[in-house]
Amino acid sequence: MVMGSLPENVDLAVIGGGVGGYVSAIRASQLGMNTVIVEKNKMGGHCLNYACIPSKTLIHIADLFYEMTHSEKFGIKASEVSIDAEKMYQWRMDVSKKLELGVEYLCKSNNIEVVKDQGTFLSSSAVQLTNGEELDFKKAIIATGSESKALPGFDFNDDIIDYKEALMLQTIPKSMVIIGAGYVAVEIGTLYAKLGTKVDIIAHSDVLSKFDKEAVSLVKRRMQELGVTVHTDTTPQSHQGKDVSLSSGDSITADVIVSAVGLVPYTNGLGLQNTKVTLDENGFIKTDSSLRTTDPNILAIGDVIGEPLLAHKAIRQGEIAAEVAAGKNDAFENAVIPAVIFSDPEIAIAGRLDGEEVSIKKFPLTALGRAIALNNTNGFIKIAYDSNGLVRGVEIVSQDANAMISEAVLAIEMGATLEDIADTIHPHPTFSELMQEVAEAALDRPIHFYYGKK
Amino acid sequence: MVMGSLPENVDLAVIGGGVGGYVSAIRASQLGMNTVIVEKNKMGGHCLNYACIPSKTLIHIADLFYEMTHSEKFGIKASEVSIDAEKMYQWRMDVSKKLELGVEYLCKSNNIEVVKDQGTFLSSSAVQLTNGEELDFKKAIIATGSESKALPGFDFNDDIIDYKEALMLQTIPKSMVIIGAGYVAVEIGTLYAKLGTKVDIIAHSDVLSKFDKEAVSLVKRRMQELGVTVHTDTTPQSHQGKDVSLSSGDSITADVIVSAVGLVPYTNGLGLQNTKVTLDENGFIKTDSSLRTTDPNILAIGDVIGEPLLAHKAIRQGEIAAEVAAGKNDAFENAVIPAVIFSDPEIAIAGRLDGEEVSIKKFPLTALGRAIALNNTNGFIKIAYDSNGLVRGVEIVSQDANAMISEAVLAIEMGATLEDIADTIHPHPTFSELMQEVAEAALDRPIHFYYGKK
Repeated sequence: MVMGSLPENVDLAVIGGGVGGYVSAIRASQLGMNTVIVEKNKMGGHCLNYACIPSKTLIHIADLFYEMTHSEKFGIKASEVSIDAEKMYQWRMDVSKKLELGVEYLCKSNNIEVVKDQGTFLSSSAVQLTNGEELDFKKAIIATGSESKALPGFDFNDDIIDYKEALMLQTIPKSMVIIGAGYVAVEIGTLYAKLGTKVDIIAHSDVLSKFDKEAVSLVKRRMQELGVTVHTDTTPQSHQGKDVSLSSGDSITADVIVSAVGLVPYTNGLGLQNTKVTLDENGFIKTDSSLRTTDPNILAIGDVIGEPLLAHKAIRQGEIAAEVAAGKNDAFENAVIPAVIFSDPEIAIAGRLDGEEVSIKKFPLTALGRAIALNNTNGFIKIAYDSNGLVRGVEIVSQDANAMISEAVLAIEMGATLEDIADTIHPHPTFSELMQEVAEAALDRPIHFYYGKK
Repeated sequence: MVMGSLPENVDLAVIGGGVGGYVSAIRASQLGMNTVIVEKNKMGGHCLNYACIPSKTLIHIADLFYEMTHSEKFGIKASEVSIDAEKMYQWRMDVSKKLELGVEYLCKSNNIEVVKDQGTFLSSSAVQLTNGEELDFKKAIIATGSESKALPGFDFNDDIIDYKEALMLQTIPKSMVIIGAGYVAVEIGTLYAKLGTKVDIIAHSDVLSKFDKEAVSLVKRRMQELGVTVHTDTTPQSHQGKDVSLSSGDSITADVIVSAVGLVPYTNGLGLQNTKVTLDENGFIKTDSSLRTTDPNILAIGDVIGEPLLAHKAIRQGEIAAEVAAGKNDAFENAVIPAVIFSDPEIAIAGRLDGEEVSIKKFPLTALGRAIALNNTNGFIKIAYDSNGLVRGVEIVSQDANAMISEAVLAIEMGATLEDIADTIHPHPTFSELMQEVAEAALDRPIHFYYGKK
């Protein structure tokens, strides 16, 4: 379907209307480029329709549901708390729909033509649409994102669903097996456990194995409290229907089997062989720091060009690619790409906590007034700093870590020292005081935690 | 009561064990000063025992209770949700007790002597205790804070209670009249309205009259939804028992009458006439930028030295006063003292939004993905910046504004420009993206909101 006739003199064709794609189109249009987006599915892409937004919507609902049955300590009592899965599903779908329409409105307002079709490159200056039309462009930005990786022997089918389908269930399953133990598996497993599902997670090594063990141990303890079973150092071998055989010899059956073993760049059917675009050994599109591919007319951004596969990285790259496409000098040079795991507690990371010549200080949530007031002391903050006191990395394990980490990102980007943070007044009583407390502790002048005699 | 015998050679006597006082004592002790705190009531003072912490604890419980009966849109249904006021009270008291014990532990660990008694200055180097003992000191820091102001004709008694007692009720009142319409009145009124109390607020002019009208209008609309009645431009004339006569000729009766018309510095019985300490025309202790009073031996911090009467200001000043008392050069020179109103939605402010040569940009919560997902779009962010793009002020009206404002405080303290914030990657999907979105909008490159053609 083509919405409106194809414009001639297209300055920029953006392939993919996800968060990276539509943001780059908006910026390009603001810079005076005649811009078209080609999107075969929904505007807003995975993030908005199938991933970030739906998962955080459902996590919020699951948290609320769980709290409602666990607030007696506060004096709150509710009998017969129930969840209507269809209604929850409807809310989650409505949210995505609202945002999708919002993106369409933004594109229209910014004079961006949206072509709802699949685009295949014919050359370095033309895209073929399935309706037979051809779109000629001066520059193109590939923003096609990623898709779920299938585990050999566990192709997606009626029995094996991916994370997208796991976020579109219309009943609360009695039991769920999740193959994979990365952040997607943890988020989905925790949310359904809170809604009453018996969850089994099959981990090749362990849960969140790439993250700080101390942070992960808190998440694992919480998952255990929620009744989630983690099968570590185990590989699923095969399945018969919804019966999964493990390398340990055991087998598990569940109502729903989710395979969440990672993402792969989405380049299938793009016709890149007709361009000068090349891929790296992992199938990601090769780009330089200005997000130019090996084809002089074509740029690429987001998941399709490599790790980390995060929406906010795609957004930032989208902005930069638009500038570069418009002929400006720009490059993706952010020092920090934050990462947030919406586990319980949340883990948010800015910068690095490892590396040479870096010291680490930790401050526990148990010493924070607001955390005690809200009965939410399961967590900590860690700060990494160099010998000059420059902040290099921050990890927050806490309720609301997702929003608080932004202060740390800005701090590192701006070259803040421990003093800068310690001497900045953080309002009381808030979780954001964690930043100030840990900076003061790193400066050997801790207030609300006693680290012992030196 | 004296805990331990009074030490000789006291380098520093801190009068008042609230957040300002105990923080200054900890810092002074770290700097090698032999330090004593004199506190006649509870360690942690008002903030911890009667104000900040209890109010935020109860607000959290009230929010949860309210959400539990208003989450059907998400598919969550709870029947017979009830609040056990005694249990809620117990939780709130337990939180304060836990924190009070925590402060006592911190003092002990940091080798600070705590004297539980009232201290009255005998001279510029001695404090008299009611037990007859005398405490000689080289330096003293006055950190006695503030107390509730009584409105003429409405002295505190069995009928008229102050904010402290309003946060210690052991039943949920059927009705409550609040005299005063500042942030304390709004916080208490909103929280009890959510717990089912019929609340009337008597405003001399209007609710939160000193704050941004656009922000306040959202809070007022929400209060109205919650059934709170605000009587504007009205003065209470007198009361007979719990029947309050208004200047309008009306009268209101309620189960509980709260007078919350402000705070006054607490200097009563301090014996300041025996020192060289002087007060300003409002009764606040006069200090210079290094927090020295007009008595060379005595410093003062927090509420007792002037506006704003905020715990985090006292904390920061406590740290600085300790340094100055220890002979170091230091001064209270923070550019920004943030303020947070824990209303619904919260209002958090860093820096200034008015003033000459400042431009303002606004970005609405209705355009933020996470806010839509959580059904919490009642709010906005505003940023004020000068002609060089330097950020001068930020106001956030939103869920979690309390924690998010810290990024803005740090940004202003570090001299961040709009570009610094716009080009910093804020994780998606989070409320913290508000900062990035509004900075981009101010730079004329808005993404998720269309401001119209230029």
